[in-house]
Amino acid sequence: MASPVSPLAVAMPHLPAMAGVRFGAAEAGIRYKGRTDLVMAEMAPGTTVAGVFTRNKCPGAPVDWCRAILPPGHARALVVNAGNANVFTGRAGADAVSATAAAAASVVGCAAREVFVASTGVIGEQLPFERIVVALPDLQSRLTPDGWEAAARGIMTTDTFPKAATRTAMIGGTEIRISGFCKGSGMVAPDMATMLCFVFTDAKIPASALQGVLRRGVDASFNCTTVDSDTSTSDTVLLFATGQAAHPRVGVEGGRALADFAAKLNELLLDLALQVVRDGEGARKLVRIDVTGAVSAKSARRVAMAIANSPLVKTAIAGEDANWGRIVMAVGKAGEPADRDLLSVGIGGTWMARAGAVVPGYDETPVVAHMKGHEIAITVDLGLGRGRATAWTCDLTHGYIDINGSYRS
Amino acid sequence: MASPVSPLAVAMPHLPAMAGVRFGAAEAGIRYKGRTDLVMAEMAPGTTVAGVFTRNKCPGAPVDWCRAILPPGHARALVVNAGNANVFTGRAGADAVSATAAAAASVVGCAAREVFVASTGVIGEQLPFERIVVALPDLQSRLTPDGWEAAARGIMTTDTFPKAATRTAMIGGTEIRISGFCKGSGMVAPDMATMLCFVFTDAKIPASALQGVLRRGVDASFNCTTVDSDTSTSDTVLLFATGQAAHPRVGVEGGRALADFAAKLNELLLDLALQVVRDGEGARKLVRIDVTGAVSAKSARRVAMAIANSPLVKTAIAGEDANWGRIVMAVGKAGEPADRDLLSVGIGGTWMARAGAVVPGYDETPVVAHMKGHEIAITVDLGLGRGRATAWTCDLTHGYIDINGSYRS
Repeated sequence: MASPVSPLAVAMPHLPAMAGVRFGAAEAGIRYKGRTDLVMAEMAPGTTVAGVFTRNKCPGAPVDWCRAILPPGHARALVVNAGNANVFTGRAGADAVSATAAAAASVVGCAAREVFVASTGVIGEQLPFERIVVALPDLQSRLTPDGWEAAARGIMTTDTFPKAATRTAMIGGTEIRISGFCKGSGMVAPDMATMLCFVFTDAKIPASALQGVLRRGVDASFNCTTVDSDTSTSDTVLLFATGQAAHPRVGVEGGRALADFAAKLNELLLDLALQVVRDGEGARKLVRIDVTGAVSAKSARRVAMAIANSPLVKTAIAGEDANWGRIVMAVGKAGEPADRDLLSVGIGGTWMARAGAVVPGYDETPVVAHMKGHEIAITVDLGLGRGRATAWTCDLTHGYIDINGSYRS
Repeated sequence: MASPVSPLAVAMPHLPAMAGVRFGAAEAGIRYKGRTDLVMAEMAPGTTVAGVFTRNKCPGAPVDWCRAILPPGHARALVVNAGNANVFTGRAGADAVSATAAAAASVVGCAAREVFVASTGVIGEQLPFERIVVALPDLQSRLTPDGWEAAARGIMTTDTFPKAATRTAMIGGTEIRISGFCKGSGMVAPDMATMLCFVFTDAKIPASALQGVLRRGVDASFNCTTVDSDTSTSDTVLLFATGQAAHPRVGVEGGRALADFAAKLNELLLDLALQVVRDGEGARKLVRIDVTGAVSAKSARRVAMAIANSPLVKTAIAGEDANWGRIVMAVGKAGEPADRDLLSVGIGGTWMARAGAVVPGYDETPVVAHMKGHEIAITVDLGLGRGRATAWTCDLTHGYIDINGSYRS
């Protein structure tokens, strides 16, 4: 199973301790041997929470649970396991989540409905939740403010590197911090995918305001990335606000007081989302697709995602082939308004086709050099309006087949 | 370029001569060396025609031409070239089609608007149409009623075997014949693997009736198959009726008189469509997906196609892994009504999951044996209604990456 680290990997940044949250990881032996697979976080009383979940119609039991307990917006603990997704496990799956939440609530001293749970791994096998229940008391006793990296590593599955990011933001003249980690490297598509992301801030923000900024942030980050167009049953993004920072009060609507917070949160979410793409199964190139000139932003996004999801575009990039004809095909298959005779396509800053035809005698040298790099930039102008959007993906390589074509990976 | 013949290949059937149509192929040197790349068919006066074309918004110049001349429903000739798709070639591309049609009309003695043209191959390069124009007189002089196989071979690009099928049908007590050939091996790979399909019948059927049966037939065959989810800029299906058979008159509406014809046409189109899937780039397994219990047939089809297009399902099949969890994921991502707790998934006739949970102690032996075969059957029951649909695809293998990741394949 151990794949070499992605050539697009980035080093994990140092995440400083944050008032109001402590982390830990343990080896619960859920599926893997000799590595941590159970992560816990405990948050201070008064912590608010926001969440965004997969749109897959067959979600896992943990997603059902989190959706059900989210509305009051209170959280005291987070329990995540790797190796078993607890998806398609029927009544027993729901019972496993309840038991896990109850066990964590017992050691923390809170209500079970304040314990958020997430699972990632194989679908359709019963989660051996007794191993989690047994491991929690010792794990909770070892939680530490410096446990960020242990947590980021403990939730990995096919990930080849831990993914984390941190930012500071200002709320009413006071500096607060936002830090988070995530996992994901396949089954990653619009509407989030085998992707779990946990973000924490010491800011004090009402749950309703938190939910608004999180939803917009996810839409502008994770929902603009794709590895393989497949949408996981377990996608979860949770944002916890411990309320320990001393800044002017934020109203339930949030509003202008959260402008900088929202901007920095979006940066952090995009940073994490791109780390997931960089760790896309088999990925050797990170691809950015900018679409301009669409009839609307929504239309631009659909065109960008059609290009990002095209196997033919992605294999061409893997082959370092500046095959703009396949980009034209992908634009056309998006089903959005497009006029072939106004369409322009560029790669790495060189327009190869303009207004519906190849640019006569364009210099292929910089394009060839660009295709050999780790980061590929595709630009498409539809020439119709002012709508624009950006999407990110990775190339489609033999590595993807290797990882996903092996028995019950 | 020469890939080994697909392990799923079928032998080309013998297509008997048909009154009212003659075929031929020539080496025009458009792109390939040492093989035929130009195909011509000449049909008797009075031949009617129906056509269905790609939904891609950036179609090639030949598709524009065929759409424009289709409405009167008259055809006297067909000219097809392989190696260059004449797509995204601007004004020059349209001029190349006009010149080709005019040259064919001249040798046949018909109007240019009675000459249908199709091209397949590289996108964005000017079609050297002079080579076609020069080759047509000699090619036309050699047309023969026995030229079916030459025609089927002359339109191949990345195809590893020629694809043809034939059926007989009854119209008003008279036996007529339907025969056709096609090419395609990435349901749609703009560079070299567009799907082109040409079907001929000696029946005498008004163009309006012909169009209706063809559209329904394509919808139930080619539109239920996928290799890689990419939609070519050149996909074309044309059905020509030479009117040489002596059967009772068919009205402009078609109707009941065409019931058997429509049934046999659908069989033939599905036969051809499955040959394309069998020759899917890198395909080693043909996959049939039956969805039942959906809220509607349309919904069932969307679910079936979501499974058929899932890279994770397709790589699992390549790995001979009966990974039903990924099928659950694909059902959920289709966005159609689905209730996880009613969902059942079977492979090769064995139910692995029923009503939202794994079947305890199901016998994996026949499933493992089934996965090693060349033809894989997936069954999904949604448990909601009576909607059903079937889709076909192939597995996603290293071969697909090899074929599409090499420079300007």
